Amino acid sequence: MEKVTMDKLTNFCKQYGFIFQGSEIYGGLANTWDYGPLGTELKNNIKKAWWKKFVEEQINVYGLDSAILMNPDVWVASGHVASFSDPLIDCKHCKARHRADKLVEEFTNGKETGDGWSNEKLEEFIKQNNITCPKCGKSDFTPIRKFNLLFETKMGVTEDNKNKIYLRGETAQGIFVNFSNVQRSMRAKIPFGIGQIGKAFRNEITPGNFIFRQREFEQMELEFFLNPSEEEKWFDYWRKYCMDFLKSLGLKEENLRYRDHKKEELVFYSNATTDIEYNYSHGWGELWGIADRTDYDLGTHIKHSNADLTYLDPMTNEKYIPYVVEPSVGVDRLFLALITDAYKEETLKDGSTREVMSLHPFLAPYKIAVLPLVKKHHSQKALETYHTLSKELMCTYDETGNIGKRYRRQDVAGTPYCITIDDETLNHNTVTIRDRDTMEQITLNLDEVANYVKEKMKF
Amino acid sequence: MEKVTMDKLTNFCKQYGFIFQGSEIYGGLANTWDYGPLGTELKNNIKKAWWKKFVEEQINVYGLDSAILMNPDVWVASGHVASFSDPLIDCKHCKARHRADKLVEEFTNGKETGDGWSNEKLEEFIKQNNITCPKCGKSDFTPIRKFNLLFETKMGVTEDNKNKIYLRGETAQGIFVNFSNVQRSMRAKIPFGIGQIGKAFRNEITPGNFIFRQREFEQMELEFFLNPSEEEKWFDYWRKYCMDFLKSLGLKEENLRYRDHKKEELVFYSNATTDIEYNYSHGWGELWGIADRTDYDLGTHIKHSNADLTYLDPMTNEKYIPYVVEPSVGVDRLFLALITDAYKEETLKDGSTREVMSLHPFLAPYKIAVLPLVKKHHSQKALETYHTLSKELMCTYDETGNIGKRYRRQDVAGTPYCITIDDETLNHNTVTIRDRDTMEQITLNLDEVANYVKEKMKF
Repeated sequence: MEKVTMDKLTNFCKQYGFIFQGSEIYGGLANTWDYGPLGTELKNNIKKAWWKKFVEEQINVYGLDSAILMNPDVWVASGHVASFSDPLIDCKHCKARHRADKLVEEFTNGKETGDGWSNEKLEEFIKQNNITCPKCGKSDFTPIRKFNLLFETKMGVTEDNKNKIYLRGETAQGIFVNFSNVQRSMRAKIPFGIGQIGKAFRNEITPGNFIFRQREFEQMELEFFLNPSEEEKWFDYWRKYCMDFLKSLGLKEENLRYRDHKKEELVFYSNATTDIEYNYSHGWGELWGIADRTDYDLGTHIKHSNADLTYLDPMTNEKYIPYVVEPSVGVDRLFLALITDAYKEETLKDGSTREVMSLHPFLAPYKIAVLPLVKKHHSQKALETYHTLSKELMCTYDETGNIGKRYRRQDVAGTPYCITIDDETLNHNTVTIRDRDTMEQITLNLDEVANYVKEKMKF
Repeated sequence: MEKVTMDKLTNFCKQYGFIFQGSEIYGGLANTWDYGPLGTELKNNIKKAWWKKFVEEQINVYGLDSAILMNPDVWVASGHVASFSDPLIDCKHCKARHRADKLVEEFTNGKETGDGWSNEKLEEFIKQNNITCPKCGKSDFTPIRKFNLLFETKMGVTEDNKNKIYLRGETAQGIFVNFSNVQRSMRAKIPFGIGQIGKAFRNEITPGNFIFRQREFEQMELEFFLNPSEEEKWFDYWRKYCMDFLKSLGLKEENLRYRDHKKEELVFYSNATTDIEYNYSHGWGELWGIADRTDYDLGTHIKHSNADLTYLDPMTNEKYIPYVVEPSVGVDRLFLALITDAYKEETLKDGSTREVMSLHPFLAPYKIAVLPLVKKHHSQKALETYHTLSKELMCTYDETGNIGKRYRRQDVAGTPYCITIDDETLNHNTVTIRDRDTMEQITLNLDEVANYVKEKMKF
């Protein structure tokens, strides 16, 4: 099947209330996006799905919700202040500013990512291959300079630089600095994990591809702490668990693949990293990173904070700095993958076409649309039904236009089930329930509807 | 009953994993707080409860999730850039910096809040009453100067001031700028509302009282758009609805009260504002603000953006700028009210004491604790039970210590139900289920447990 283009997807999202341009009436703010009514429900359901599978159903994973504003020493310790930066290069001719690694990536059609290359190596490669400015076509660049990606702000009333802080560049650090607090208060035993969902901010030079790369984005991160001797076991476990999770939400297998990082690509402290990539409209790109980060994070915080973040095994009396495996995924990227995968344009038997968002029922913004067949006769019963069902499930109500038109509206919203309230409902308390994907209808007793749909939501 | 002190509550929250000091291992960051495993669950449940009652069960309310980073013109239009500020005053003697309105409030024991007073009036009042510096006791102050509460940051790579933006000071503006997007995409008819939950940031001079006043906090805001002729009706409706919501979550009536703003207290565009106040450990304070904001917000955005934010009534052909009623509540303040209300220290019949968090089952972090009576004999069945139940409800598992000790642990966590897995479970598939508040036990078939608890969660 042909992939939907990013333009089409962006317009679709705007038209039907999934995603709007941020601050649109003021001309927008570069690459910020606001989730509309349907997008908000979908996004919330993605977060619920992750929380359910990575926290709720895990006997040894604990949730956390740490602050976006942290003591700036955290970012010194983590290395973000020194080296969380993009290599910028300016075209001397047209003054356009570029990311040097992206120039390399585009030039080699993705064969080389330029990731982790030194400035010297990047400059050398650009010169040797005569890479040109994508804007003006000339090849005349300044030297590379580093640009830190952390957003700065100031807290408090004094005017000097002492109160400079950062918006967090990742949620993970909130987990590391709370390792002991969580371990102690939960009496947690290794192996155990701490999961967190929250906003992070990166002053990216080249945001883009709709919600794929944003400066403000939301992460779902799990830090799983373990005995160093079990490093490989748990890395393999989470690497597989994440892929299974994606498939269980209905993502097509052919659009997913593992990309194991090569030795020279790994950051110095990581023993293994795998990306799960998705085949987005703009091509294959990272969806989920699973990294074996060894004891680097806790180790660096021990060094900088002098806090004791070691773990004493109560059975063996072994004392050690736990290793950590980190599966980290962006809510927005998963959102993009899911709608790319779910979007379909179908030609029906009668020759007409329909657009459908074939989202998993757990993820669908509305679970049930309640439709009175004839407004005059059936809207009272339909409204009653809506109010009863909406106490259990997110529902919508639509009484305008013919039933075919109303089905189409629910197709684009991704609503998996429509129930029609008609004379049969008034007389026998039954409804026809219509399946979004098969378009087939069956008859159910009204009292069975909620449970019928709840069963379909399981994953 | 005696109120729990803030110190006791803060220590309790730290000890049992509700709330930790932010960035604690680095000495903290003034007045930031991290929600621990139990606090995160409680906080998420508060948000779920609000979303359920203010969005899901409302046929005409739509959700939104707009970006924290917005075009700075939004904050010019809203008035935040010009006047979202605290009146600061310095003690010439000891150099301590104070909020002038807070000096007035403390001096009058809350009889005067100083809210909305001009600088002149504040200075005059302080002079006439000889109000002294709380730090050094002298009465020798500088003139007042205004300090803007918006956090500033910069976006993008250029170094000039053109890219100065703000962290949003409230979630409401994200709703106003999306009024037309939501109305159009949802084909919404007035009256309708847009609800949003999200972080907001205010560079408060005097944060404090634990999580009561923070610089980073989370809001749950509903903007309900209506025909100006129905102003009073909807103001009264939401004023009552919010109070009913609080009571349905179990907050005690004697700890809640309305405070209607006096005419001279109202901001110039508001026709009515009511605070719902809660009796916190530190005294009565605002929990929920319900404001009739007239057409001020949409009006000012029309003026500044030139966008057409009027509404054309499809029935009457009347065209107008909708009025808005705004019920706005802080997640963190509601969290504080709920734990203050739920905390109990009880003396039991045998003379021992227990601490209990009597949270509504919907809000409780864990719904069920699964406890094997004897680890050796019952832990296998108990683990099976945990894994089955955790697919439907947030559960916990505890096999260490005697049953009494384990009950106490669940009491402080606020777990409403403990089930004990014993020989009866192995032989007859029954469990005893123990009620947190009454401490009474009944016997249930294991298959009935989930539904039994789900019934109790309804509100």
